[in-house]
Amino acid sequence: MGRRVLILGGDGYLGWPTAMAFSRAGERVTVVDNFAKRQWEAELGVRPLFPIPTLHERIRAWREVSENEIELRVGDLTDYDFVESIIDDIRPDTIVHFGEQPSAPYSMIDVRHATYTQANNVVGNLNVLFAIRDRSPDSHLVKLGTMGEYGTPDVDIEEGYLTVQQDGRSHTFLYPKTPGSMYHLSKVHDSHNIHFATRIWGLRATDLNQGVVYGVETDESSLDPRLATSFHYDEVFGTALNRFCVQSVVGHPLTVYGKGGQTRGYLNIRDTMACVRLAADHPADPGELRVYNQFTEQFTVLELAERVQAAGAVMGLRVEIAHTRNPRKELETHYYNAKHTKLLELGLTPRLLSDELIDTMLARIQEHAARIDSATLIQDVRWVPSPQARATERTPA
Amino acid sequence: MGRRVLILGGDGYLGWPTAMAFSRAGERVTVVDNFAKRQWEAELGVRPLFPIPTLHERIRAWREVSENEIELRVGDLTDYDFVESIIDDIRPDTIVHFGEQPSAPYSMIDVRHATYTQANNVVGNLNVLFAIRDRSPDSHLVKLGTMGEYGTPDVDIEEGYLTVQQDGRSHTFLYPKTPGSMYHLSKVHDSHNIHFATRIWGLRATDLNQGVVYGVETDESSLDPRLATSFHYDEVFGTALNRFCVQSVVGHPLTVYGKGGQTRGYLNIRDTMACVRLAADHPADPGELRVYNQFTEQFTVLELAERVQAAGAVMGLRVEIAHTRNPRKELETHYYNAKHTKLLELGLTPRLLSDELIDTMLARIQEHAARIDSATLIQDVRWVPSPQARATERTPA
Repeated sequence: MGRRVLILGGDGYLGWPTAMAFSRAGERVTVVDNFAKRQWEAELGVRPLFPIPTLHERIRAWREVSENEIELRVGDLTDYDFVESIIDDIRPDTIVHFGEQPSAPYSMIDVRHATYTQANNVVGNLNVLFAIRDRSPDSHLVKLGTMGEYGTPDVDIEEGYLTVQQDGRSHTFLYPKTPGSMYHLSKVHDSHNIHFATRIWGLRATDLNQGVVYGVETDESSLDPRLATSFHYDEVFGTALNRFCVQSVVGHPLTVYGKGGQTRGYLNIRDTMACVRLAADHPADPGELRVYNQFTEQFTVLELAERVQAAGAVMGLRVEIAHTRNPRKELETHYYNAKHTKLLELGLTPRLLSDELIDTMLARIQEHAARIDSATLIQDVRWVPSPQARATERTPA
Repeated sequence: MGRRVLILGGDGYLGWPTAMAFSRAGERVTVVDNFAKRQWEAELGVRPLFPIPTLHERIRAWREVSENEIELRVGDLTDYDFVESIIDDIRPDTIVHFGEQPSAPYSMIDVRHATYTQANNVVGNLNVLFAIRDRSPDSHLVKLGTMGEYGTPDVDIEEGYLTVQQDGRSHTFLYPKTPGSMYHLSKVHDSHNIHFATRIWGLRATDLNQGVVYGVETDESSLDPRLATSFHYDEVFGTALNRFCVQSVVGHPLTVYGKGGQTRGYLNIRDTMACVRLAADHPADPGELRVYNQFTEQFTVLELAERVQAAGAVMGLRVEIAHTRNPRKELETHYYNAKHTKLLELGLTPRLLSDELIDTMLARIQEHAARIDSATLIQDVRWVPSPQARATERTPA
């Protein structure tokens, strides 16, 4: 029998493919979700590109296709009794925690979305930490963080820690963070709470500071259309490259914010699967917080747009690039050099962004072009609302 | 007319004396409280040393004594509509924010107290930030943080920021924090959120990383017994020196945790008033987060105990020092050198700890010795619960 793996947020873009990947590798997988993301989608009137069956149906389809069982527990991580009962029942070897509100624009809609995001993410993660402490202290927590926690400092971004020398003295700190949204802040809060749990309670944890993920499918999701992952192209839940590919297919200009010099780390969704697997295979020691910077390449947003434009041209798509007003407040040209060697040292073989991959994405998206709702491509959530918007904004209870 | 000053947490140990101090200086003061602290006291069966009238009564007594008005608004900072309406009505020049759950042991009781502390403090503070942004962007937020956010690094603790040099490049970060409890973590989360609000929205804020406050009265609270401040001596809400003085008076051994080499910054409650005043008088610029380390002296816990022991001896008290098992997980001997020059540069004249001051505290406490409930001196909240406690602990809903 394989390891017991508990996947929190098992209905999501990354959670569901991760569950299938561990299941196919012979692990005993349990997924948890409260389907909050489906409610947020309904709230904003957006939907994933592929039709996504219920999680119950997907689990049945997975059993048919793979002959493997995935167990489902439905509930909310902010309910401590629920979290404790699951962790007590399963005593997982590994807990992969994707179960948070994952969108920066969603967290910036207004004060209620900001406080909801921080309270939801922080309380859920604290409940997981206390339940591990009290019911399953040997469980290894693999927590999804984000490269966006670091911001864009004028010095290199180290991999999790920063060592400071001073008059013959030295101290190693958690690398200081300068996050760019209420969502990214929630992940910074989580990281501090997890660090405390490793330092004070001796828990084992790995914090994955993940870059921007792109890609429409994984080895498992491509086995059957019912196993598709929840691919978003709207401005709130869709990530940069994914959105550009969908915009290309429907003939919408690629929306590059401002100058487009914003540099970030990126990775293929298949590499997310590989990285989470490597983290689980190399558990932190008791009392240790491992931190990996989980991405494979750095690009500017404009570089990404140009790559998509070029790939589209080959397929006969006329793709324009529009430098739109930046809804975020961020530097549009800046120094950026983030270390990312630890996962390579563990054996990650990156699948770098290739024209062929973009071609495949465009082709896959074209098959479903009829489902694309162009009205949702732009959501217009602004980091700094206009004075008019502030003055007239009503905040219903 | 003076400035409009809004004091959040106006019923507390520091909030009420601060309200009186600003009021006596001619400012137009509004206090806000939801009286949650009075509920936590009831929950734990502890009470302040002095009888504390209702806040309504204290405000009437203050009017009698000083002929000054203080306005009261009762409500909860986690209710955004309440926060917005107050800030919109008052458009304060200065907002002094004491309105948080302030106890490290309270936050460590169990998972529910931990998540309550973080959600309450983080959401309340976010609501204040959004209400300032949308209703009164020129208000200067003076936020109470704590020196405990920093932990005890092996290098000097700078005053808020850390500049890192690297191969000819340089970046100034918020000083990285390694806090020691769920409460201290909540203050670190607040600091990150406030930093965001200054960087992204251009708000003005000053973060006061305060040391451990001691003292029984201020210039204003001593004017009338009805104006007394909420002085705690129990292990959950009482601070180190205050607890030692009360223990001396009732003949309880001074409870020094472990070796007692834990070094922290301390200050007199009258210096808290002076520092908050200096912060209000020197508002941060739009977009600026000022950070002051607000304490006047460093002591080890054992040094403090020995000072109280010596002062007690002069008054004929036989004071023993007990090295008790440390309920916290912390280093008991460590390097500690925290910078604290910015408030001195603004004109702070520290009232350093003197034998005379300890004498005065002991004498004041002796007057009220009959009210001391010795049963509440030890609360036994452990940072790392014993395995038995974990296994048998029930978590009622």
